[in-house]
Amino acid sequence: MNEFELIARLTRALPGNETVVVGSGDDCAVLDVGAQDRLLLFKTDAVVEGIHFTKATPPRKIGRKALARCLSDVAAMAGTPTAALVTLGLPPGFEVSFVEAIYAGLNELAAQQGVAVVGGETTTNPERVLISVSLIGFVPRGRLLRRSGAKPGDAIFVTGELGGSLAGKHLDFEPRLVEARWLAEHFPIHTLMDVSDGLAGDLRHILNASGVGAELLKRAVPISRAAQLAAKAGDAAKPAFAAALTDGEDFELLFTTAGRLAIPLLDAWRKQFPKLRLSCIGKIVPGKQITIRDQRGAYPLNARGYVHFTPAKSHLADGGR
Amino acid sequence: MNEFELIARLTRALPGNETVVVGSGDDCAVLDVGAQDRLLLFKTDAVVEGIHFTKATPPRKIGRKALARCLSDVAAMAGTPTAALVTLGLPPGFEVSFVEAIYAGLNELAAQQGVAVVGGETTTNPERVLISVSLIGFVPRGRLLRRSGAKPGDAIFVTGELGGSLAGKHLDFEPRLVEARWLAEHFPIHTLMDVSDGLAGDLRHILNASGVGAELLKRAVPISRAAQLAAKAGDAAKPAFAAALTDGEDFELLFTTAGRLAIPLLDAWRKQFPKLRLSCIGKIVPGKQITIRDQRGAYPLNARGYVHFTPAKSHLADGGR
Repeated sequence: MNEFELIARLTRALPGNETVVVGSGDDCAVLDVGAQDRLLLFKTDAVVEGIHFTKATPPRKIGRKALARCLSDVAAMAGTPTAALVTLGLPPGFEVSFVEAIYAGLNELAAQQGVAVVGGETTTNPERVLISVSLIGFVPRGRLLRRSGAKPGDAIFVTGELGGSLAGKHLDFEPRLVEARWLAEHFPIHTLMDVSDGLAGDLRHILNASGVGAELLKRAVPISRAAQLAAKAGDAAKPAFAAALTDGEDFELLFTTAGRLAIPLLDAWRKQFPKLRLSCIGKIVPGKQITIRDQRGAYPLNARGYVHFTPAKSHLADGGR
Repeated sequence: MNEFELIARLTRALPGNETVVVGSGDDCAVLDVGAQDRLLLFKTDAVVEGIHFTKATPPRKIGRKALARCLSDVAAMAGTPTAALVTLGLPPGFEVSFVEAIYAGLNELAAQQGVAVVGGETTTNPERVLISVSLIGFVPRGRLLRRSGAKPGDAIFVTGELGGSLAGKHLDFEPRLVEARWLAEHFPIHTLMDVSDGLAGDLRHILNASGVGAELLKRAVPISRAAQLAAKAGDAAKPAFAAALTDGEDFELLFTTAGRLAIPLLDAWRKQFPKLRLSCIGKIVPGKQITIRDQRGAYPLNARGYVHFTPAKSHLADGGR
């Protein structure tokens, strides 16, 4: 049973109440807290030593990442983050300066984004550092972007470049808050999320929630320089395109809008965000599958994000990609 | 440096914004989220295997406790809890039935209290189970009870009985939500908190926040049967009265109101909550100290919650108490 299957099982019987607009299963929970013009976003996310960072990671970057991951989830709802609580699990005998540096990195990003850090707690986690951040934010009422809104004929977009995040980006990424709000304000976006588990897996969440399939153009998927370099050096566990599809922690935006708006959106984006690449990587189609199309044809991608290349012998002659 | 000193150091430089009504340093953070009639409460709390529960603790009780601790903090603000997120750190190879039982215990209490569980996440914490719960709730605007409102002449009250929680109550306690709201609605309560770190330490938080001292009547402090039994059996690390002052995890309410209201409040309480003991344990006085008064005189309590009995030789003859 993987994480998603476990969560699906656990979330079947969760108690609700009349404040819940969106419960589990989207980037943030959404609650109606009685404010006339907006809904509350509520999210929690944890980072653990040895998994999301190492003993060698500078503590400022650990603190920054712990908050940035939550901010990316608020971006995925086109929301504005407001306040955070920090839970710090620490081995006994930790250095105070280490903890202060974690907070310094977290506070700096919070201040940049207008987020108040309103407390939290420290507890003992004897073997390793663990940081859980809770975040609330807001989204205008009537502008809620869920994973379930994708429609056949939609164009699929992704910001930035994908893959190879472990080379450094996973500690330094910019949550796409401004970009997501701009999109929601200027275009009828159908669905929006952040790419945190890899494009293939996260697109799968949109497709499942929306009851549709997708066709991706291999050439259009933006592959990061880090993933390309790793593949060229021959020390990567997977080819660069597979890295772009399945590496985690990209924290870019993945969204769809009606296909006829693809060109106007790309034009407007380039004017608004000239430094951040936006790629139209394919389209939403009827069905359930993700299909990869290149100059030789179309190939299915399996549900887990693993690229299924076996039918394409000509590809093996092309370097295995 | 203890937990409180560390937190004091870390919270000096936390970023804020215009939504913050109460930041760190009270039972919950309080935020103005634009709802006309109420303020948002925001709290997070973690329990860790080997510290807050053991490998032998039934998982339903672990889940219940993880939520109940947060609920007690909402009670400490006389608030109403609304929605929770659950972060579960699990060693690899955990049993799914174990996780389901944690959720069952948590969900049952949530449903009883009208709290929606709106998601969360699982992450790997290789050596031990850790559960962090985030909770939001509400308090009516204008009825916010802080730790800083105690005034000389106030009567000090505590619900239930104190000490010896480890014998079982720490897993089964009832968060005093109904009682706290009733108090806030019917009496001009000056200050309110929950007793989670022991009466002496928690009263100290109120005194520091309010700039006052307190005099406790030894005879009036309600000592739990568990603490009394442990002391009689001779296997307790401390006498029963010291247990009542310094054991943690009582999760009772500690509050003050004007002394002239003490009798009317006790009378009204008995009618409203005939099954839950309420004790007037002393009064707020000028100064900074906590003084313990018994039939022989008055003795200071030091700041850390440790009972300082050395001046009282007659007490040593009385069995060290």
